[in-house]
Amino acid sequence: MIRLEQIKHLAESTPSKIIFLVMDGLGGLPHPDTGKTELESARRPNLDKLARDGICGMSTTVSAGITPGSAPGHLAIFGYNPLEPKYQIGRGVLEALGIGFNLKDGDLAIRGNFCTIDKAGLITDRRAGRIPTEKCDELCTKLGKIKVKGAEAFVRPVKEHRFVLVFRGKNLPPDINDTDPQKLGVAPLPAVPNQSSAKATANIVNDFLDNARKVLADEHPANMVLLRGFSKYPPEVPSMSEVFKLKPAAIATYPMYRGLAKVVGMDILQAGSTIKDEFSTVVKSYGKYDFFFIHIKGTDSAGEDGDFARKVSVIEEVDRELPSLIDLKPDVIVVTADHSTPALLKGHSWHPVPFLLYSKWCRRDSVQEFSESACAHGALGVFPATDIIPLALANALKLDKYGA
Amino acid sequence: MIRLEQIKHLAESTPSKIIFLVMDGLGGLPHPDTGKTELESARRPNLDKLARDGICGMSTTVSAGITPGSAPGHLAIFGYNPLEPKYQIGRGVLEALGIGFNLKDGDLAIRGNFCTIDKAGLITDRRAGRIPTEKCDELCTKLGKIKVKGAEAFVRPVKEHRFVLVFRGKNLPPDINDTDPQKLGVAPLPAVPNQSSAKATANIVNDFLDNARKVLADEHPANMVLLRGFSKYPPEVPSMSEVFKLKPAAIATYPMYRGLAKVVGMDILQAGSTIKDEFSTVVKSYGKYDFFFIHIKGTDSAGEDGDFARKVSVIEEVDRELPSLIDLKPDVIVVTADHSTPALLKGHSWHPVPFLLYSKWCRRDSVQEFSESACAHGALGVFPATDIIPLALANALKLDKYGA
Repeated sequence: MIRLEQIKHLAESTPSKIIFLVMDGLGGLPHPDTGKTELESARRPNLDKLARDGICGMSTTVSAGITPGSAPGHLAIFGYNPLEPKYQIGRGVLEALGIGFNLKDGDLAIRGNFCTIDKAGLITDRRAGRIPTEKCDELCTKLGKIKVKGAEAFVRPVKEHRFVLVFRGKNLPPDINDTDPQKLGVAPLPAVPNQSSAKATANIVNDFLDNARKVLADEHPANMVLLRGFSKYPPEVPSMSEVFKLKPAAIATYPMYRGLAKVVGMDILQAGSTIKDEFSTVVKSYGKYDFFFIHIKGTDSAGEDGDFARKVSVIEEVDRELPSLIDLKPDVIVVTADHSTPALLKGHSWHPVPFLLYSKWCRRDSVQEFSESACAHGALGVFPATDIIPLALANALKLDKYGA
Repeated sequence: MIRLEQIKHLAESTPSKIIFLVMDGLGGLPHPDTGKTELESARRPNLDKLARDGICGMSTTVSAGITPGSAPGHLAIFGYNPLEPKYQIGRGVLEALGIGFNLKDGDLAIRGNFCTIDKAGLITDRRAGRIPTEKCDELCTKLGKIKVKGAEAFVRPVKEHRFVLVFRGKNLPPDINDTDPQKLGVAPLPAVPNQSSAKATANIVNDFLDNARKVLADEHPANMVLLRGFSKYPPEVPSMSEVFKLKPAAIATYPMYRGLAKVVGMDILQAGSTIKDEFSTVVKSYGKYDFFFIHIKGTDSAGEDGDFARKVSVIEEVDRELPSLIDLKPDVIVVTADHSTPALLKGHSWHPVPFLLYSKWCRRDSVQEFSESACAHGALGVFPATDIIPLALANALKLDKYGA
């Protein structure tokens, strides 16, 4: 497969436009009563028309049998191989993106847990009895007042016992061991640098930990914190404009996906909370960008909840609103997903996802509808998700010839 | 594709069970009279039902156009990329596994040929006129009495002029050049170490060769030996339990396949000699393992013999016995092969092999029967054999999500 360093020399900026519609967790499994998946059960005349006029296939996000998390799922469909270590997004950064914390270049992000320690300082509960989120809010406000030398500390609640800790300062290498020993009956570990350059960072973290222990001393059960996934923002991911010569914009209702889009250098467009809002944001900004990543969260949420019917209705809603995008007459329309989230499994799964690409130049195949079973017979076959962006660029005539 | 070091962190041990049925050399070519392959000619209602309820495809064992030997064929379907040098099994070790020699950790195994030398010591026949196997037996017994300093030597007949030589001792690095010059009119080469650490090994081998020359001096035509494929046991292959967190067992009637299963850390179960025996061994041991590799040799043997009808009847026999396995209600059933052995070619071939996977979560496709022509339209497409184990693990819900 072609590498980003190679495609970089082929990509060129042109006026042609790409609409990139991602229905999170779109792929499903057949309902036992009907034998049809969520997508197959939905009324979807517009998606079917695009499939009929386009070319289809099934896309494997990470690798056969592998269930993708949201970060590798999106990186893959943005064109970055999520199995390469350099494209793995640290846990701390991901958690910060998930709550919409405005990470700045050079920030060190860490995932935190409140925990319970006994009088001897040994951990008795790594999750502090999963304290209510309101309590987490309150404790984060307390911890947020801690001052440490050499960096500014931000503490933000996530959910229950989970929070995000961000240090902002100069030169904070993230090569620090987790302080979470991952077992009970032992003390939280101190921050230890994995290489000498991270010594100062470790001192800052330990300073914070000493303070946190004092601040939380009289709390129960959340009387200490454990830190994991020390990671730096931004990750070392070249931007889509650098590699693919695109001017990309992202429309997403959830912070995590706006964050992932920001990681690859997309501009984030403000949109309301409905699918209609998202699509009309595209219409409004259509002149300013040449690549629109539109993220639909509802399909995944319904799948995670095991709500087959709701997932069907989200797909139908997307289909109903689709004409507003089609009417823009973009050069390329891609509709796909970052992974499957079958309602039957109530979670992400390894199943390949249905894919369609519509363009004037797509060499249309015999697929007559947009569904898992039809896409399985599409002319694109089963193909890796990292091929999607090159295919979209090619169909938008944005890629020069390779070699003479 | 995901690497073993990555999948290792996703795999988890669960009670779910996988039946992994390998019909050696299953893939075939159409009979000129009927246009049907061996598999397509067989009555196979049970395999067809599994295909209808499951998901199908065609699996490429090594790479397009490449005909796999037994070792790379099996390593690939066990999840190890046979093109990686570290997963190549030395010829000496393979020959020893093939005759069921009980190799122990640290053994140095070598493939031997009896040859003919003239009075000047120059080779006149590299295979000693392919002496009868009985003669080979007799000469191996003689050679087996040779004592060398620093190691114990085992000499075991294989077939005609071929034998296995194993040295057992402390610290015997295998970095020794073949003593077979691969041409006539020159003398057998001495054992030469490729690196200084193998000096002692080379001395032991040369000591053995001096003795062999004396022992065989009055024999004709087998009056000398040539040695090849110096290799160490075990090869550097991480076990399936280490990488895939499985508790795997192997049922095979031929020593070679038990040996290959042992290389990847499977327990070897004793079974009788028929297909029925093999399947009933699975039934008896069903509680003790979560992965059962069942090797059917008859399909390959019949293919190698060019016996189309016999290959058909072996497939029919497997199909008849299959209900005993299906009745166990395993979470995943895989039926496939290590390579094709078309009766028309009388040997292994490069053709992809039919593959079926049945599980509750497989997302069944439209394939209606288990045959090469039907599997070619399966939803899995044409896919590398190293994907098989990840797919089986995923369908048994034994793989955690990749990334958050």
